[in-house]
Amino acid sequence: MIVRIITVHVKPEFTEAFEVETVKNHEGSVGEAGVLRFDVLRDGEQRGRYILYEVYRDQAAVDAHKETEHYERWKTAVADMMAKPRESTSCEVVAPTDPHRW
Amino acid sequence: MIVRIITVHVKPEFTEAFEVETVKNHEGSVGEAGVLRFDVLRDGEQRGRYILYEVYRDQAAVDAHKETEHYERWKTAVADMMAKPRESTSCEVVAPTDPHRW
Repeated sequence: MIVRIITVHVKPEFTEAFEVETVKNHEGSVGEAGVLRFDVLRDGEQRGRYILYEVYRDQAAVDAHKETEHYERWKTAVADMMAKPRESTSCEVVAPTDPHRW
Repeated sequence: MIVRIITVHVKPEFTEAFEVETVKNHEGSVGEAGVLRFDVLRDGEQRGRYILYEVYRDQAAVDAHKETEHYERWKTAVADMMAKPRESTSCEVVAPTDPHRW
């Protein structure tokens, strides 16, 4: 499994629109065979800060996600809503190691 | 649901011991009624950086976790392994909103 944690800073006037677009991306993404999780989170303290918690079966699934229509649509829709470029961290899984627990 | 994302920086000589202790904490935590996820991740690029992705049913579950023996044991065991104090972010869930999808 590969976990990608994406941090996005959204301009205050676009938070609602960003959530709408990102929920659409979430719905498309969880339908992909190689996507185990695609959680969308709102920072409870820092308004406009969002975190996407994306769990993929393997690198092929990461690559496949970037080719999807919902990802392309999201990327275009939210580009001008961001206050600065998004940050991404790739992680390895320490626990749980059982794929059925994802 | 409440999501807590904890970032920990571990001294290089303690990464293995930290993982052993944190997997024990993971195993205890996923047995708690109010804990929906307790993922332990290793940063793929920055050695010694770990992320805990903790999902709780509600605030009562967060409070109950802090009273458990496995949490107390972990906190004590890893205290001297950290290169600096751990950072914590509390998040609200945008998606998925269905508790069965956690």
